[in-house]
Amino acid sequence: MSLIDTLRGRDYIETRDFSEPELELLLRTSDDLKSKFKAGVPHRYLADKTIFLFFFDKSTRTRNSFEAGITQLGGHAHFIDADTSQIAHGESPKDTGIILSRYGHGIAIRHDLLPSEGNSYMREVAHHADRPVINMQCDVDHPCQTLADLMTIREVYAERRGLKLTKSSTREVVKGLKIAVSWAYAPSYAKPMSVPQGLIMLMTRFGMQVTLAAPPEFKLMPDTLQAAQNFAAQSGAKFEITNSMEEAFADADVVYPKSWGCIDLFKQPQESLELSKKYKDWICDAQLMKAAKKEAIYMHCLPADRSNEVTDEVIDGPQSVVYDEAENRLHTCKAIMALTM
Amino acid sequence: MSLIDTLRGRDYIETRDFSEPELELLLRTSDDLKSKFKAGVPHRYLADKTIFLFFFDKSTRTRNSFEAGITQLGGHAHFIDADTSQIAHGESPKDTGIILSRYGHGIAIRHDLLPSEGNSYMREVAHHADRPVINMQCDVDHPCQTLADLMTIREVYAERRGLKLTKSSTREVVKGLKIAVSWAYAPSYAKPMSVPQGLIMLMTRFGMQVTLAAPPEFKLMPDTLQAAQNFAAQSGAKFEITNSMEEAFADADVVYPKSWGCIDLFKQPQESLELSKKYKDWICDAQLMKAAKKEAIYMHCLPADRSNEVTDEVIDGPQSVVYDEAENRLHTCKAIMALTM
Amino acid sequence: MSLIDTLRGRDYIETRDFSEPELELLLRTSDDLKSKFKAGVPHRYLADKTIFLFFFDKSTRTRNSFEAGITQLGGHAHFIDADTSQIAHGESPKDTGIILSRYGHGIAIRHDLLPSEGNSYMREVAHHADRPVINMQCDVDHPCQTLADLMTIREVYAERRGLKLTKSSTREVVKGLKIAVSWAYAPSYAKPMSVPQGLIMLMTRFGMQVTLAAPPEFKLMPDTLQAAQNFAAQSGAKFEITNSMEEAFADADVVYPKSWGCIDLFKQPQESLELSKKYKDWICDAQLMKAAKKEAIYMHCLPADRSNEVTDEVIDGPQSVVYDEAENRLHTCKAIMALTM
Repeated sequence: MSLIDTLRGRDYIETRDFSEPELELLLRTSDDLKSKFKAGVPHRYLADKTIFLFFFDKSTRTRNSFEAGITQLGGHAHFIDADTSQIAHGESPKDTGIILSRYGHGIAIRHDLLPSEGNSYMREVAHHADRPVINMQCDVDHPCQTLADLMTIREVYAERRGLKLTKSSTREVVKGLKIAVSWAYAPSYAKPMSVPQGLIMLMTRFGMQVTLAAPPEFKLMPDTLQAAQNFAAQSGAKFEITNSMEEAFADADVVYPKSWGCIDLFKQPQESLELSKKYKDWICDAQLMKAAKKEAIYMHCLPADRSNEVTDEVIDGPQSVVYDEAENRLHTCKAIMALTM
Repeated sequence: MSLIDTLRGRDYIETRDFSEPELELLLRTSDDLKSKFKAGVPHRYLADKTIFLFFFDKSTRTRNSFEAGITQLGGHAHFIDADTSQIAHGESPKDTGIILSRYGHGIAIRHDLLPSEGNSYMREVAHHADRPVINMQCDVDHPCQTLADLMTIREVYAERRGLKLTKSSTREVVKGLKIAVSWAYAPSYAKPMSVPQGLIMLMTRFGMQVTLAAPPEFKLMPDTLQAAQNFAAQSGAKFEITNSMEEAFADADVVYPKSWGCIDLFKQPQESLELSKKYKDWICDAQLMKAAKKEAIYMHCLPADRSNEVTDEVIDGPQSVVYDEAENRLHTCKAIMALTM
Repeated sequence: MSLIDTLRGRDYIETRDFSEPELELLLRTSDDLKSKFKAGVPHRYLADKTIFLFFFDKSTRTRNSFEAGITQLGGHAHFIDADTSQIAHGESPKDTGIILSRYGHGIAIRHDLLPSEGNSYMREVAHHADRPVINMQCDVDHPCQTLADLMTIREVYAERRGLKLTKSSTREVVKGLKIAVSWAYAPSYAKPMSVPQGLIMLMTRFGMQVTLAAPPEFKLMPDTLQAAQNFAAQSGAKFEITNSMEEAFADADVVYPKSWGCIDLFKQPQESLELSKKYKDWICDAQLMKAAKKEAIYMHCLPADRSNEVTDEVIDGPQSVVYDEAENRLHTCKAIMALTM
């Protein structure tokens, strides 16, 4: 069976559900779709097909990348928020999975507000669905974001290292790069842990050195830490954890500081906010950037909390690649849809 | 004038507005579109055309079937909920009907919350519209649902009776079958009466024996009962009313138990709920199913209130056809759009 | 550079950003697209392209005209209301402009609730966007509405004067016509001033005699009055201001009475409402219509507040062109999209 055949019909819920060659194919396809889009070459691989986009939580980038993406592929997305659908009052995951599989060709879900809810909901829908279920962010992973992140790192470092994207594997391009995945302060609602968790699980696989930094109370799910540990062991990378932002940033090629919530306080937003305030100095500013390599890139999944998570100087500065990263959400989600649906 | 010509441009508000041959044509077209969809044969009969979907009330199945359906037909649906449009603040049915007729090609409306409001609203929009108005559920009828129900019964019994769908009329296939349309308990908001009303008006026309069961307070609109009576007289079927679920189920080929509100209490949800509680034993369980024929099919328009209207054992059991029924919502709404728009 | 080239990629924020030949081209293109639509001739000029429609405020006509319009052009619109997107919680205009420019092909925004907010927001998004930004109504102008209004006046008077739309310029058709742009009473939230402001700025350019009437407290933005004055001077038209509805209507060929808010009271809806009540007699009724020319046309952007702004007799009468005006919203927004995107 060819690689393409192994992807057709598959759910895309966590990157760890996929082999390295499968992820490589997703990245190559993203590159290809990006070129076609820029060149104005039609690529209607999903003509008249429907994907259902369910948002239990608010979103801008995710919705717009999927909806514009399927349009470019010739299909159509239903944007469905929990407020306007019966999912909020009593539709079971089983009914959702079975019925939508009969109406359309793919089901994408965002459900990330509380730990231990989103991922299991998606897996239950997927269990009953005959069509692929795509995770647009859950409590555990945000595999559309992290794939776009990896695509971005790959593009930047292939160029810097004089490698051709069409000829070099991702592992060849990113191997040995150090990424700092760090907590940062934000005075907002408890944000999901899925981005840092997804990053440590994905970047370790391709041989990157991953250092995770967070205040002691802001631990990630043990299961994801273990997965990162295992992937690092397999790829020969290092996976380290520290309580110091500076230490994580030291000599990093890539820095990715962002806020997330305390796993024990997701249902107590007030306490969560109070706790965060102890760590107001966890901000990514020009001073801190000096700890990283001179040409290190600054990443963020957006929207960033300016003046809290990061200063304008850094996010708007020459090291920031946030808009390329955001753009790559489009190309990667198109690859995911085109290959699984 | 051919049958197809009589449908072009027509409003689809109640099934009783249509002749038996017209309904037969709608069912045949649904079959045809179902085959084409399953075979992946393109059927862009409404290329670049627009239908406006207005939802005064929440919905999942109806919206998704129409929106995916028009996509498969090559067109596009506007999903419009009352909250985000000016219809909520002051747009008249006349303005809506005239203007949308100039922008697009069809107008579908769901407006089912209160008796005597939805149907008259639709008819007023239709009076001013040059394009077909389609009823996605009102207080009187749910003609998209009941057409899908009839399609499902027809499929099941054609197969059981060894008849070909392409060669046998619906009347030949379903004549003499007994359907039990029954009230069932649910501790929820007062649900519209349109499904049972639509069922008794449609199934009697094709010669089915219809028994309606409900507690004494849960009467249907007199006008719909009279219509059912007349249709039964014309087709030679029987239309009976009882206060006993068991009696209705006795020897039935099809059972369709679901909750609806008390006509006098739609504006008093609390009283409605209290009244319902007297009839908690109106549940469709395995014991009750034994009253029906051994191979009787269980139907529900979904979402069902599990453990109240029906037990998991029944709705997930071998007699349940709820997912085929839900699927047929897609094929029938496509036929309705394709033939009227 | 040809005219078409000057429009490609341009923002459409106020009509005064465009030259008269550019506006003429937009009107001609609207005529052409209207003919094609009526004749059923496909015109997929924006195949598989995406426009993002952002609504900070409610809308029916604007959304439906854009969404149906882009469908007819072969593309797709994302309907995005502030409630369901992160724009409400912290997305900056810069992020919006840059990222959406990478995902799609145009950005349209409605943001009209408070004076001095909407226009500047749009201009900031436009500053960062590589794709055209289209104003679907702001605090200053409503250039999609006024272009449709001008198209309507042009159609009516070309026919009355025996001129061919394809052969006569707009200026030739409308020159010398008198339009009364008048305040009218409505007991509702403070409506934006953008329609009257847009009208006085656009109609003066094409040589129409414009008389603006309003109670003393309901002044328009000084900057827009000055612009109207300047355009009138250039085109040889007259621009006058009065406090009397009757005076404005005297001998008018076109009357356009509608409610708007008091510029100083947009944040005090209660006071605004109280103030309005002093002028309940500012209603367009049959008596007042007699002041205008016998064949004068009545215009309104809808929804009109019947019995307050206007009587049914007038808005439903033979002089009313409100539905043609509403229809032309479709054709003009298609021309704007087709030429800028």
